[in-house]
Amino acid sequence: MEQLEGRIGVEAALRARQRKIHLLVLRNSLHAEIINPLVELAEARNIPCKLVSREELDAMAHGHTHGGVLALCSPKPHLNLDQLFRHLQTAGFPLFLLLLEGIDDSQNLGFVLRSAEACGVDAVLLKKHLWDFDGAAVSRASSGAFERLPLCVFDEATAVLPRLSAMGIHIYGCLANAQRTMYQVDLAESVLIALGGEKRGLSAVVRSHCDRFIKIPMLSSTGSLSLSHASAILLAEVMRQRFDRTTPSGAKTK
Amino acid sequence: MEQLEGRIGVEAALRARQRKIHLLVLRNSLHAEIINPLVELAEARNIPCKLVSREELDAMAHGHTHGGVLALCSPKPHLNLDQLFRHLQTAGFPLFLLLLEGIDDSQNLGFVLRSAEACGVDAVLLKKHLWDFDGAAVSRASSGAFERLPLCVFDEATAVLPRLSAMGIHIYGCLANAQRTMYQVDLAESVLIALGGEKRGLSAVVRSHCDRFIKIPMLSSTGSLSLSHASAILLAEVMRQRFDRTTPSGAKTK
Repeated sequence: MEQLEGRIGVEAALRARQRKIHLLVLRNSLHAEIINPLVELAEARNIPCKLVSREELDAMAHGHTHGGVLALCSPKPHLNLDQLFRHLQTAGFPLFLLLLEGIDDSQNLGFVLRSAEACGVDAVLLKKHLWDFDGAAVSRASSGAFERLPLCVFDEATAVLPRLSAMGIHIYGCLANAQRTMYQVDLAESVLIALGGEKRGLSAVVRSHCDRFIKIPMLSSTGSLSLSHASAILLAEVMRQRFDRTTPSGAKTK
Repeated sequence: MEQLEGRIGVEAALRARQRKIHLLVLRNSLHAEIINPLVELAEARNIPCKLVSREELDAMAHGHTHGGVLALCSPKPHLNLDQLFRHLQTAGFPLFLLLLEGIDDSQNLGFVLRSAEACGVDAVLLKKHLWDFDGAAVSRASSGAFERLPLCVFDEATAVLPRLSAMGIHIYGCLANAQRTMYQVDLAESVLIALGGEKRGLSAVVRSHCDRFIKIPMLSSTGSLSLSHASAILLAEVMRQRFDRTTPSGAKTK
């Protein structure tokens, strides 16, 4: 059982209909414009709602920034490989996948998922033994994106990456010392972006399945990007190239 | 007095020489390859060092992830306007400035500063009444970038933005509903990027000094970017355009 806290995440979970939600708890002093839409969503799914006092809700909450909204629910279900491939068949080309390795922090995973959804990623892949996250914390940091975004947790990269290649998806591994920059490859075609953690980078097995390696070129000699901010920049570059392709008027107008 | 915790931030503060550091405290069981460089840096500045037991250091620390390294120091000094303009005269063209409004969280400010340094920002501007941050928390989230990056805290936007315009710096305000995208303007010239918070955006006074407004164009209809991730994408676009300008061989090689 997980406890989601905060209106954005709870509303996202109610709308996404991926979790089984057992109980919605709301502070009785909330404005009607916050309470009513949540209660409507819950009633449409036969989820019991409880209005409680500020003291009662604060005592139930784990954190301090719940804003008077809690939900008790099952963990969000992950896609298995078959479900992933069924999802990709309906997602429409060009496909845009993200594979993550070496994230060891729920907040960072949530940050990456938020940017991934905003940049149009179709599904995110994570290795099974790396799934040791607090789903409520991931959801919170993702501003609800975790509730909506298809997430596939797989056992072996060798069981999934060749199948994606066979579908025509180009697999790009991101390495700080890659020779090519992300600007020098065609990311408007179907791609999987494989991103490793700040400490160890990509594993040898994932590298062995990459078609090419790319990097974010840096002009500054000092400083570094965090994993979640590097991923935002990479994902936005995929979006830029697709935007360029779809809007030929993207030329400078200055 | 601020207490920096963790090797990366403490080493950055020692090297940046902006704070007055009163005392360096190290866990006596740390490896010599961690202790020795820090002690050398401290000795070169006549900063006293104290080697203490794990229990003693844990009792002194505010957090849990200090890794055995603490420093007691003065707050990092900010640039005033005169110092900012002197700094810009030596920074070399094209200049790259970032103005932040509406950040209300030390961690988010630290994240933005880390990306700003990595993308080559020359100085960051913040309004004085908005400076209510825990410098140690900013430093930590910035992975040390806060210690190195020139930060100017100003009173009135009207006292600083026209002077920057007069230097030939183009002022771009970032608005979600701007007509132009960041790809449609020339960011390789001297620019100031003005970024507002997720809730209220840019203030009217800062908007009134902007030459143009730009946005990050989105392909996805769901989701949103956090302030720090949107800023990373904007700053990286400035870097991309400058990289393009400096390396004409940046054409696609695929």
